[in-house]
Amino acid sequence: MATITIKEIAKLAGVSTATVSRVLNNSGGYSDETKQRVLEILDKFNYQMNVVAKSLRTSLTNTIGIIVPDITNEYYALIALAIEKYCAPRGYSIYIYNTDEDPEKEKLLIRDLESRGVDGLIYISGKMSVPQEALKKRLPIVCVNRREEMSQEITVIESDNYQGGFIATEELLNKGCKSIIIIRDERDIVPMNERYRGYCDALKKRGLSLNLELIQPIPFNVSKADECVQNLIRNQIHFDGIFACSDMLAFGAMQALREHGKRIPEDIKVVGFDNITFGKYSFPELTTIHQDKVGLGEKASEILLNIIEKKERPKQSIMVLPVELVKRKST
Amino acid sequence: MATITIKEIAKLAGVSTATVSRVLNNSGGYSDETKQRVLEILDKFNYQMNVVAKSLRTSLTNTIGIIVPDITNEYYALIALAIEKYCAPRGYSIYIYNTDEDPEKEKLLIRDLESRGVDGLIYISGKMSVPQEALKKRLPIVCVNRREEMSQEITVIESDNYQGGFIATEELLNKGCKSIIIIRDERDIVPMNERYRGYCDALKKRGLSLNLELIQPIPFNVSKADECVQNLIRNQIHFDGIFACSDMLAFGAMQALREHGKRIPEDIKVVGFDNITFGKYSFPELTTIHQDKVGLGEKASEILLNIIEKKERPKQSIMVLPVELVKRKST
Repeated sequence: MATITIKEIAKLAGVSTATVSRVLNNSGGYSDETKQRVLEILDKFNYQMNVVAKSLRTSLTNTIGIIVPDITNEYYALIALAIEKYCAPRGYSIYIYNTDEDPEKEKLLIRDLESRGVDGLIYISGKMSVPQEALKKRLPIVCVNRREEMSQEITVIESDNYQGGFIATEELLNKGCKSIIIIRDERDIVPMNERYRGYCDALKKRGLSLNLELIQPIPFNVSKADECVQNLIRNQIHFDGIFACSDMLAFGAMQALREHGKRIPEDIKVVGFDNITFGKYSFPELTTIHQDKVGLGEKASEILLNIIEKKERPKQSIMVLPVELVKRKST
Repeated sequence: MATITIKEIAKLAGVSTATVSRVLNNSGGYSDETKQRVLEILDKFNYQMNVVAKSLRTSLTNTIGIIVPDITNEYYALIALAIEKYCAPRGYSIYIYNTDEDPEKEKLLIRDLESRGVDGLIYISGKMSVPQEALKKRLPIVCVNRREEMSQEITVIESDNYQGGFIATEELLNKGCKSIIIIRDERDIVPMNERYRGYCDALKKRGLSLNLELIQPIPFNVSKADECVQNLIRNQIHFDGIFACSDMLAFGAMQALREHGKRIPEDIKVVGFDNITFGKYSFPELTTIHQDKVGLGEKASEILLNIIEKKERPKQSIMVLPVELVKRKST
């Protein structure tokens, strides 16, 4: 399949190659009629035309960048997949950038975003800052389950994290727990803070006071959750319930409980957050807060493509999707 | 950051915009000296120049496409991440295409590959055929854990699937199993056939004959593995060991065993394949065959970039990475 050249376009349009170049660069010095003729030829060959060449003309590349902390985490992967499923049939290709939340990678990322000229960005969770360059360029950006306090031009789609924290804690209270550990990401990020706020309010509603010993901020990582619960048991901290702010953290916590001969849910009850696939196959099967990963990905895509194609931003800058409790065998 | 226009290049080079266009299109009609001058200006502005424009000149886009059946499977995601980690610092961006092994998506994929002009492709597992168009164009392609019988120009990096099947089965035999189920992908694909061949040879080495009832080809999916083992138990097929050809299949199988009150490993022993993270957090922790996901991704990337940049293909068309048995608590 041949790419049409400027020379061929010029020949077909009956103008000089210089004129075609000017039209491609949108640099003026030609009549509207000439422009029309050149663009018609481009459109005619559009289907077979190299997107690379087309993007020079429209300044759109029909590419979207997804920025995730770690694609090997199923929660992120499910959102990324939903974005691809929405965008691919609409003619967009997806670049995926894993940041590991690493500043060195961030630098590479910015350079790459610059040079690739993606049409828009979707940030999934994480705390890596949105590059200033992207903001200056007014590149369309949608964030999923993260909030950038610094910019009001970024639309945010998020799960109802507060409600999730609240109902997770209520489930544990309803099952008789009196001393509930919360294992959360140690970073000061909005989704985690909201889940924590839900936890606090659920305790308060029952007239229970906060016990600082039970609040466990850790690096967001399964083996750290395992370690954290092992330490609590060794230090003989009393607890009968665990609200883990992600399913991965819950799996680490359950591992530690099993290792110390604690029965789940008889001795200690556990609720996770996210509802990833493995929760159905863990032992015991994990009670968790379902996040609508597909809905988050689709909504983010829909909003982003509207901004790119129609310059339409939604009126609210934060959209919240509901969560629900999935009861299984760990509570 | 402004993109340099053809007009500006022409001005700097002291030639007409038409000449610049001809140089960009490599269409002749200019002196070597002129070409040199234009390319020098392009190089000077290279760092700030749009990759889109640059790619018109070099016919490389510095993009690589990864084709995976399903990025939400950690095994695929780990290989994809290793590819990104190798390629990104070398200036390549990664498109990820999830096929779901769906023919409709395949069509979109081919159209997209055409128009994006990726420099190379890495196929991870799956059975979707490599598009004829890509083969015709002699696009550099590397396959990870899949073999295309039809083309000898495609380099394959794979785990030692035969050896993996052999040592997985030996582990079960060594632990006293006499009737070992194999749960495998029902499709006729080389990695699965090789694991199966290893299973058969390990049995043969002990003088055990194949029992067709114990060979369970299923759609490659965790809930089907659960169903499959439930059916075997209901139909009172006797078995004391399970070799599951992926960890996900093993989790489904263990779920079924737990539901029927079978103790692992006391009543039935289980070995998986892949060594994904959850194996450390399943109950019991899963004995499995470790595949070197990072090695597969890195080796595939190294070979692909050598083909793209130096036109160097490795001498062997199949490269095999060793696997190893990871002993945990399910055997």
